[in-house]
Amino acid sequence: MIREALKKDISVMQKSSPVDLVTETDQKVEALIISSIREKYPGHSFIGEESVATGSSSILTENPTWIIDPIDGTTNFVHRFPFVSVSIGFTVNKEIEFGVVYSCVEDKMYTARRGKGAFCNGEPIKVSGQEDITKSVVLTEIGFKENRDHFKTMMSNIQNILTIPVHGIRCPGSAAVNMCLVACGSADAYYHIGIHCWDMAAGAAIVTEAGGVIMDTTGGPFDLMSRRLITASSRPIAERIARQIQQFPCGRDDEESS
Amino acid sequence: MIREALKKDISVMQKSSPVDLVTETDQKVEALIISSIREKYPGHSFIGEESVATGSSSILTENPTWIIDPIDGTTNFVHRFPFVSVSIGFTVNKEIEFGVVYSCVEDKMYTARRGKGAFCNGEPIKVSGQEDITKSVVLTEIGFKENRDHFKTMMSNIQNILTIPVHGIRCPGSAAVNMCLVACGSADAYYHIGIHCWDMAAGAAIVTEAGGVIMDTTGGPFDLMSRRLITASSRPIAERIARQIQQFPCGRDDEESS
Repeated sequence: MIREALKKDISVMQKSSPVDLVTETDQKVEALIISSIREKYPGHSFIGEESVATGSSSILTENPTWIIDPIDGTTNFVHRFPFVSVSIGFTVNKEIEFGVVYSCVEDKMYTARRGKGAFCNGEPIKVSGQEDITKSVVLTEIGFKENRDHFKTMMSNIQNILTIPVHGIRCPGSAAVNMCLVACGSADAYYHIGIHCWDMAAGAAIVTEAGGVIMDTTGGPFDLMSRRLITASSRPIAERIARQIQQFPCGRDDEESS
Repeated sequence: MIREALKKDISVMQKSSPVDLVTETDQKVEALIISSIREKYPGHSFIGEESVATGSSSILTENPTWIIDPIDGTTNFVHRFPFVSVSIGFTVNKEIEFGVVYSCVEDKMYTARRGKGAFCNGEPIKVSGQEDITKSVVLTEIGFKENRDHFKTMMSNIQNILTIPVHGIRCPGSAAVNMCLVACGSADAYYHIGIHCWDMAAGAAIVTEAGGVIMDTTGGPFDLMSRRLITASSRPIAERIARQIQQFPCGRDDEESS
């Protein structure tokens, strides 16, 4: 469905209402995924970006739960920038059991199951193993933030990473693909404050099974609902990034909306 | 040759001497391109990144001249980050006549000849046509600079673009691919201070033939040797970027080395 939508003329996609097109495809893809799974597993729970946007709960319970981002990289999708993905993670007792990320334009299917390794189109993948941050490529996302202080912190974090120095910073625009790029060794780290659980549930399984490290941006343990992520090819790189960056408030995915 | 090199184990590529591997492949590819062309056109001139690095002239003359970047995106190449390209432009009387960019991992061959349109794998391509910068995706590159003032200006330029605001900034890491992404409408603009003539000679033909605009970062006419570039889907976007960013000194490609 996403690949078909991407074939439409880009001028149609970008005219007056790109938001509508995104919402339409987003909702159709999420509905397809949820209905297919629900048919087979009627008792399971779902946390989907679109469902949450329209009022569903995003509280993670012990129940088997599918965490879905129907289109990760929506800005990329509207512009046909080549990193767009579908991300599906699965938890039981709040533990991630497996994850699937499909990078639609690249036609790459990343999969991982706890204890069973990580794969891209069926071939085993592993992180670069790099431990020296000065030889690393670091991924992040750079965007406008209404809050002036948050924006300033985001910019100074990028500056703090660049001046270590590192080989380079790349900003591809799809959180789930970013995690897969770390998992297959094309980048050595990715950090992001303000990410969502549906962006990282699948990627967390994939990068962990590929031998990568995953933690909170504070340096503490990874928390799927904290909206904060560092993932890296090794613990020294992840910990160095945690020391280099400052936090800014981004809320939690499981906060009760007021 | 590049695709073969990319198949090597990433740990081999990144161990102690990634620079050597890059240099080796870079030089082999450039030598292959130059020798093949020279056989057919013995009177033509060449400006190649590797030849210039080893002391050849980079003064553009009226003579038919091939301007070559054997591996554009060398950091990406070392890390197998998926944007790596070969860029070949051709000038006569200092005017760009045609260009070819091959994005090696994506397997996309971009071509353009003056007055004959631009193509990707043989299919015609065109820019997005977007004129509203607030709906645009802007590409640039973000890197460490030894000079503190230059670094500060580079960072504040990014901030000035983000706060317009725009849909997003992306940093893919290959100048020639960036130009092709604008040419095929996947991004609406790309600006870069410190780029080289071999990064943009081919891309300039491709983006122009795809209906795009190309100019100096000062807003003046495009100068292949100035090391400064704005390219965009439309004049309003290019001019707005020129107004938003500040210059920092980066030298010229045709400066006599002292």
